Amino acid sequence: MKNCTDRGERGNKMEQKGFTLWFTGLPSSGKSAVADRVAEILKEKGLKVERLDGDIVRKSLTRDLGFSKEDRNENIRRVTFVAKLLTRNGVAVLTSFISPYREIRAQSRDEIGKFIEVYVKCPLEVCIERDVRGMYKKALKGEIKEFTGVSDPYEEPLNPEILLDTDKETLEESAEKVIQNLNDLGYLE
Amino acid sequence: MKNCTDRGERGNKMEQKGFTLWFTGLPSSGKSAVADRVAEILKEKGLKVERLDGDIVRKSLTRDLGFSKEDRNENIRRVTFVAKLLTRNGVAVLTSFISPYREIRAQSRDEIGKFIEVYVKCPLEVCIERDVRGMYKKALKGEIKEFTGVSDPYEEPLNPEILLDTDKETLEESAEKVIQNLNDLGYLE
Repeated sequence: MKNCTDRGERGNKMEQKGFTLWFTGLPSSGKSAVADRVAEILKEKGLKVERLDGDIVRKSLTRDLGFSKEDRNENIRRVTFVAKLLTRNGVAVLTSFISPYREIRAQSRDEIGKFIEVYVKCPLEVCIERDVRGMYKKALKGEIKEFTGVSDPYEEPLNPEILLDTDKETLEESAEKVIQNLNDLGYLE
Repeated sequence: MKNCTDRGERGNKMEQKGFTLWFTGLPSSGKSAVADRVAEILKEKGLKVERLDGDIVRKSLTRDLGFSKEDRNENIRRVTFVAKLLTRNGVAVLTSFISPYREIRAQSRDEIGKFIEVYVKCPLEVCIERDVRGMYKKALKGEIKEFTGVSDPYEEPLNPEILLDTDKETLEESAEKVIQNLNDLGYLE
């Protein structure tokens, strides 16, 4: 019984399995909104969670980078390094980057290992209607160059672990789908 | 008793406290050697450990950077971001960078929080004798510019948590000093 009590005092948390949820999709497809909501749910479950997105990362890690293909890929490479380290130390990492290129997403998958690709799918017309930051408007006027979906390519995931249709699902439904998938994949045991 | 057994099954590991051991010092002062040895000891104790050093980081995170003051500081800023995330998620982080500027080390301390500065002190003459990578030789010939200790400044820590005299101590003694300090600071409970 002594031993048992000791265990209680030392904490009885199960060692968390690290993973990276990699949200990819067009601007205004809903990546950040769903990732934020999933992060909230995972925190409520007591998991260690880190969110990596453009706003956070471009301030600290990648403020030298623009939006050329090369710069976008370098951006993703640095994020991948951070996600890899966190993942192998048992953290639930949620990244939300357009990450439009298939090849570099495949590299991130290889490097991170426990990598769950979440394709946040939404028709371009709906994204343009939403235009969360008013960026499509500017891009369509030609005021922003290299804007994904307008003047820059987006290569759809061919075989993502999770597919969200954010034009048909509510935010809660999308988040729940991700949680359900994590459960099925054995990450929330 | 059921509950007690469940705890056992779920693992009875104590939640690890994250911290960053920040090794700073001249080239060839012994930063990496001591950090590597301490990392080994911490791993043997069952801790989650990450080493961040120039070789690792310049490949992934900072391969665009040179050795100007600005670039050195940007290098440290990125490392600090990674160390901060790992530290707050319970990882023992060991960084070994010359990190010659006091101001940016102070910024890293502020940002990381659980920051233990390890000044790896060694007289310049001894570092030049060691010249682990043959870099001093080149720097003294003028073949390398901006080389710390020769043509670039090193600002000594004024109040480091740990001071190692690597010209007087063996590697094991230095490593043991660090472990002892971690113990005293309550990080290895």
